[in-house]
Amino acid sequence: MPLTPEQASEIASQRTQKGATLRDVSPALEELLYTPLPVLDHGFVRVIDYMGTDAAIVQAARVSYGKGTKKVNEDAGLINYLMRHRHTTPFEMCEIKFHIKLPIFIARQWIRHRTANVNEYSGRYSIMDKEFYIPHPEQLAAQSQINRQGRGDVLEGAQAARVLEILKADSVNAYAHYEEMMNCDEAGNIFDESKTGLARELARMNLPVNFYTQWYWKIDLHNLMHFLSLRADGHAQYEIRAYADVMLAALKAWVPITYQAFMDYRMGGVSLSAKGASVVKRLIAGEKVTQEQSGMSKGEWRELMTSLSLPA
Amino acid sequence: MPLTPEQASEIASQRTQKGATLRDVSPALEELLYTPLPVLDHGFVRVIDYMGTDAAIVQAARVSYGKGTKKVNEDAGLINYLMRHRHTTPFEMCEIKFHIKLPIFIARQWIRHRTANVNEYSGRYSIMDKEFYIPHPEQLAAQSQINRQGRGDVLEGAQAARVLEILKADSVNAYAHYEEMMNCDEAGNIFDESKTGLARELARMNLPVNFYTQWYWKIDLHNLMHFLSLRADGHAQYEIRAYADVMLAALKAWVPITYQAFMDYRMGGVSLSAKGASVVKRLIAGEKVTQEQSGMSKGEWRELMTSLSLPA
Amino acid sequence: MPLTPEQASEIASQRTQKGATLRDVSPALEELLYTPLPVLDHGFVRVIDYMGTDAAIVQAARVSYGKGTKKVNEDAGLINYLMRHRHTTPFEMCEIKFHIKLPIFIARQWIRHRTANVNEYSGRYSIMDKEFYIPHPEQLAAQSQINRQGRGDVLEGAQAARVLEILKADSVNAYAHYEEMMNCDEAGNIFDESKTGLARELARMNLPVNFYTQWYWKIDLHNLMHFLSLRADGHAQYEIRAYADVMLAALKAWVPITYQAFMDYRMGGVSLSAKGASVVKRLIAGEKVTQEQSGMSKGEWRELMTSLSLPA
Amino acid sequence: MPLTPEQASEIASQRTQKGATLRDVSPALEELLYTPLPVLDHGFVRVIDYMGTDAAIVQAARVSYGKGTKKVNEDAGLINYLMRHRHTTPFEMCEIKFHIKLPIFIARQWIRHRTANVNEYSGRYSIMDKEFYIPHPEQLAAQSQINRQGRGDVLEGAQAARVLEILKADSVNAYAHYEEMMNCDEAGNIFDESKTGLARELARMNLPVNFYTQWYWKIDLHNLMHFLSLRADGHAQYEIRAYADVMLAALKAWVPITYQAFMDYRMGGVSLSAKGASVVKRLIAGEKVTQEQSGMSKGEWRELMTSLSLPA
Repeated sequence: MPLTPEQASEIASQRTQKGATLRDVSPALEELLYTPLPVLDHGFVRVIDYMGTDAAIVQAARVSYGKGTKKVNEDAGLINYLMRHRHTTPFEMCEIKFHIKLPIFIARQWIRHRTANVNEYSGRYSIMDKEFYIPHPEQLAAQSQINRQGRGDVLEGAQAARVLEILKADSVNAYAHYEEMMNCDEAGNIFDESKTGLARELARMNLPVNFYTQWYWKIDLHNLMHFLSLRADGHAQYEIRAYADVMLAALKAWVPITYQAFMDYRMGGVSLSAKGASVVKRLIAGEKVTQEQSGMSKGEWRELMTSLSLPA
Repeated sequence: MPLTPEQASEIASQRTQKGATLRDVSPALEELLYTPLPVLDHGFVRVIDYMGTDAAIVQAARVSYGKGTKKVNEDAGLINYLMRHRHTTPFEMCEIKFHIKLPIFIARQWIRHRTANVNEYSGRYSIMDKEFYIPHPEQLAAQSQINRQGRGDVLEGAQAARVLEILKADSVNAYAHYEEMMNCDEAGNIFDESKTGLARELARMNLPVNFYTQWYWKIDLHNLMHFLSLRADGHAQYEIRAYADVMLAALKAWVPITYQAFMDYRMGGVSLSAKGASVVKRLIAGEKVTQEQSGMSKGEWRELMTSLSLPA
Repeated sequence: MPLTPEQASEIASQRTQKGATLRDVSPALEELLYTPLPVLDHGFVRVIDYMGTDAAIVQAARVSYGKGTKKVNEDAGLINYLMRHRHTTPFEMCEIKFHIKLPIFIARQWIRHRTANVNEYSGRYSIMDKEFYIPHPEQLAAQSQINRQGRGDVLEGAQAARVLEILKADSVNAYAHYEEMMNCDEAGNIFDESKTGLARELARMNLPVNFYTQWYWKIDLHNLMHFLSLRADGHAQYEIRAYADVMLAALKAWVPITYQAFMDYRMGGVSLSAKGASVVKRLIAGEKVTQEQSGMSKGEWRELMTSLSLPA
Repeated sequence: MPLTPEQASEIASQRTQKGATLRDVSPALEELLYTPLPVLDHGFVRVIDYMGTDAAIVQAARVSYGKGTKKVNEDAGLINYLMRHRHTTPFEMCEIKFHIKLPIFIARQWIRHRTANVNEYSGRYSIMDKEFYIPHPEQLAAQSQINRQGRGDVLEGAQAARVLEILKADSVNAYAHYEEMMNCDEAGNIFDESKTGLARELARMNLPVNFYTQWYWKIDLHNLMHFLSLRADGHAQYEIRAYADVMLAALKAWVPITYQAFMDYRMGGVSLSAKGASVVKRLIAGEKVTQEQSGMSKGEWRELMTSLSLPA
C-alpha cells in the first residue's frame, strides 16, 4: 500500500483540520479517521466519516428528545436486549463510510451486499492503477478435497514457485498490454502522438481480476454487522476475511458496547436447528445420541458437534 | 408543538455540548441541529445528525484520497453535471437523520418511501401522546371535482364549523376512551387500582389517524431528494408538503450547492414525453399545434401547456 | 369477510380461466389461488400470483440451463444446506403476490418490512370501507405486567363488555361522521346535492386505526420467510400472527421442501449467544450452572432455560 | 454462444413441458421462454420465468378483487397515466427472471443496480468456462477526445489487428495458466494425479475481466425499466447496451402496453431543467436565445440543442 507523496500529504492534511460540532463524537474512531489501515499486499481500509455512536442507538430506541442515554450499564443492557431480540432498526441509525482498495475478485464478492452505497473508481473514465494482488506464500492453498468451496493444504516447493511466477508474469504482461493498447502509460503519458489509443472502457478488459480497484463504501451499522458476520466468518474466502478483520477493529473503536454485543450474540453465537436443539436437550439429560438417531445429515451432525466442541 | 419543560431542557442541553471532530462540518446545519422546526399544529422536524456536505459528494465522485474539492465553481460544475446526468451514487454518500412528529395518516404516506431507516414510537410499548391534528380553516378544502385525488374550494360557514366540531369532538372522545380502556391517563397514572387495563397494543386501535406519532428517520441525500421531489410537489397532499417544505430549508442549509442543482434540475424541471418533445419542436419552428394533432390525451395536453406556461 | 356478490363473482371467474404455460407450476398453490382465506373478523389473505417452486431454488443455486432438479432427496439436501448456511440468494428467485385485507394498525407494523412491493387502497382517491376490527372476547387481554410489549390475562365481565362497547360505538360514530363530512355514504351517494363534501384525503383522518384497509403485497421467498420468522413468532402481536399463520399454510402448499427446512432451521431453531453456548457445553458435560455463574442477565437466562425446556 | 448438446437438450426439454395454470399468461413471452437470445460473441439472455402482464398493473392499481382490467384503451390510458405521473408501485407488481451470460466487466457495471435478485455462477465452487469476449472490429473504438467516458473513431489497420492479437493471446494464455495452476482442464480432468492443484478460488484471479460469467437475475418491472432507461441509453457502454436492446425486445413481448408507454415517456422523453424550460418558452415565443444568455454551461446548452434537434 505505497501511497504517493501527494496522497499521503492529502491524508495528513485532513487529519489536521479539526472542526467544532454539536453532533455525537466517537473519540476512538476519530483517532483512526482517514488513515489507511493496510490489508493484503496493496489494499487498505480507510474510515472517512461516521454518524452516531452507541448513544445514537439508545436515543433512537427511546425515540428521545435528548441524548436518550442513561447509565452505561443500562445502555449496555438495552443494546444487548436489542441485539438478542433482533430489534435491528435502532442499529440502522448509525452510519459509517470507508474508502477501500481491494482486488477486483474480492470487490465482486463484496458488492453482493446490496444495502450499502458505493462509488467505485471508474475504468471507463480513468486509467487503472498498476497494482495487483499476489498471495503471500502461506496463503497459496490447494483446493480442499472435502469442501468444494474451500482451501486445503498449502502448496509448497516448485509448485508454489510456479504459481507465483505465473501470477506475477501474467499480471505484468496484462498491464503492459493495457498500456500499449491505450497508447499511454499509467500516468497518461502518450507513447506515440501520431496514434490514438483504444478506449479505456475497452482496454481495461485485458486486466485480470487480481488487479486492485477502489471505492467509497457507506453502510449502516446493522448492515455492516450483517456483512461482518458473513465475511469475518471462517467460511469466507481468506482475502475478504482480511478486510473484515480490519473493519471489526474499526467497529470496536466506533461503538464498543455494540461491538461487545455483536461478538457475544452473533460472531460467537451458535444456531441450533429444531433437530439440533432436540439433540442438545437429550445430551443435557444425559442421553447418548448418535448421528443416525438424530435425523440429521452427516454434514449437519459434524457442524453441530464442532459448534458444541464435542467429538464427531 | 408545545414541548414539555423536560424536553425543552434536554434539547437545550444538547445544543451546548460542542465537540471536536476531524469530520466534514456544515456550519449552517449545525445552527439548526436539535431545534424543533414547527409543522402543522403540533408537529415538528428536528435535524438530529448528518454525515457529509457538498464536499463529500465531489470527494466520492473523484474517489479521492483527500477532501477531493477544488474551486467552488468547479465543485458546483461537477455537482450540476452529476445531477443532470442522473449519476446518483455520489449523492448517496451524504446522510441525514431527523426526529419527526407527524399525524398517523401522513406517516402512512411517508413510510411508503422504503429506502430510509425508521425507528417509530411504539404504541405497543408506550402510551400515545394526547395530540391530534385539526386542520387550519384555510386547509378545510372540498373534494376536487376534476381530480379524484385532490382538493377543491375551501369549505366555509356552517359546514366548515361542523367539520371542525366533529374532528375535535371525536378526537377528544377517542382519547378519553383510550385512557378508560387502559385504566390510566396519558402519564400512566392508574385510575382504579383494583383493575388491570386493556393491553396498550389493543387500546390504541381506538385512536383515529389524525393523532400524532413520532419517529427517527434517516436517509441518504439522493433518496431524500427523491422524497422531496415527490412530496414537495403540488400533487402531494398539503399536510405532507408542509413537512417537505421545512426539510427543503434544512437541505439548503446543509448542502447549498446540491440544493441549487436540485431546484434547477428536479423541482423546477419539466419532463417532456416523446410526443411532448415533438410538439415543442413544432412550436419552436413556428407551427400551430392542437391537442387533436398532438396524439396526446386531453389531460396530458393540459399538463404540457401548463408546464410551458401556454394557454390550454 | 363478507364479499359483495360482485367480488365473489369476479373471484369465481378468475378460478375458471385456465391457461397453458411453460413455466414452473405449483399444483397445490394453484388450488388456493384467488380464494380469500379468512383472518380476524373481516380480513383475508388471497394468493394472487407466484413465480417458481422448490425447483426454481435448486435451478438458480446450480445456475442451470435446464430445470436443474435431480432426485427429490438431493434437492431437499441442497435446500437444507442453503437454509442452514444462510445462502439466501437462491430463495430470492421465487416470488409471491398477495391481496390482503387488514386493520390499519396491523398494516402499520407490516409495512416496516421494506423489501416488498406494495399497492395500497387509497383513502385519498376512494371512500374507505365501513369495516372495522373488534377483537374476539378471548383476545381482550390486559396489559402484561412483566412485558411492557405484551398481553397478560384476558379481561372479563363488565370490564370486557365495556371495552367492546367503546370500540364498537366509537367505530360506528367515526364512520358516520366520515360520511357526514364527505356529504356522501360508503357507496358515494350524495346526501345533499346543494353542498360539496370535505375532501376524502381530509375526511379519512377521523377513522380509527382498527378500520380495515387492503393492499397488494408482493415479496420474494427469502424475505417472506424473514417476515414470517418475526411475525409468526410468539413475540408478535396476536393480530399480525393471525395473518402470518395463514401465510405459513400458503408457504407449505407452494414450496413444501423449503417450508420443511424453514420450520426446522428457522421457526423451530434456537439461537445461543457465546455465553449461552458456553452454558450448554457445561450442562452437557454434567456441570451445574446457575444464572449468576453464567454471566447472563436474568431475562437472557430465563429465555435460555425456556428454549432448552429446562426449569428457570 | 455455442451450447453444449446437453445444454441444448435441457432447454429443448423445458420447452415441451406445458402445464396448466390459473395465473395471468403472456402468450408472446411464452414463445421466448428458455430460448437463448444471443448477445456479443458468446453471451446470451434467456427469459426463465415471469409474473404478471399488463393486466396485473391495472389490477394492482385498482386493488381489484378480480382481473381489474377494462377495455384495452382504458387500460392503456391508466398505464400511460401511471407512467407519466411516476406512480411506480403498480409496475412493481410484475416480475421477470433471466439467465444471462456476460463478460465480467459488464457484470461489474450491471450489478450496480441493487434492486434485483442475483445468483451468480461461482468461481470458488466451479471451474470457469473457457469463453472470453473479443470485440467485433467495428467496436474497436479509440478513446473519445471530448468525452472522457466514451468512444471515438474506430481503430483501423495494423493498430486494430494488434489490439485483437493482444486480447486473444492474453486470454488464451491466462486460461492455460488457470488450468495449469488448478492442475486440471475445463472439464475437471486432472493433469498430474501426483499433485493437488491450487484452490479454484485463488486460481481464478488470473482471468481477465473479458471472461464470461453467468447469473440468474430477477427484477420487478419498474426496476427493469429503470435499468433499461440507463443501459439502453446512448451514454451506456456499447457492450451493456447490446444486452439492454435484447431485453427491450423481451419487454415488448411481455407487456406491450407498458412497453409503448415506456418508449414514449421514458426512452423518448426529454428532461428540461428550469433554465432549459425557460429557454424553450422563449424560443416558442419567437425570441432568439444564445448560450450566453441562457445561464447554462456549454455542455448543458449543447445537450439541450441536441434534444430539441436544433443547431448548437
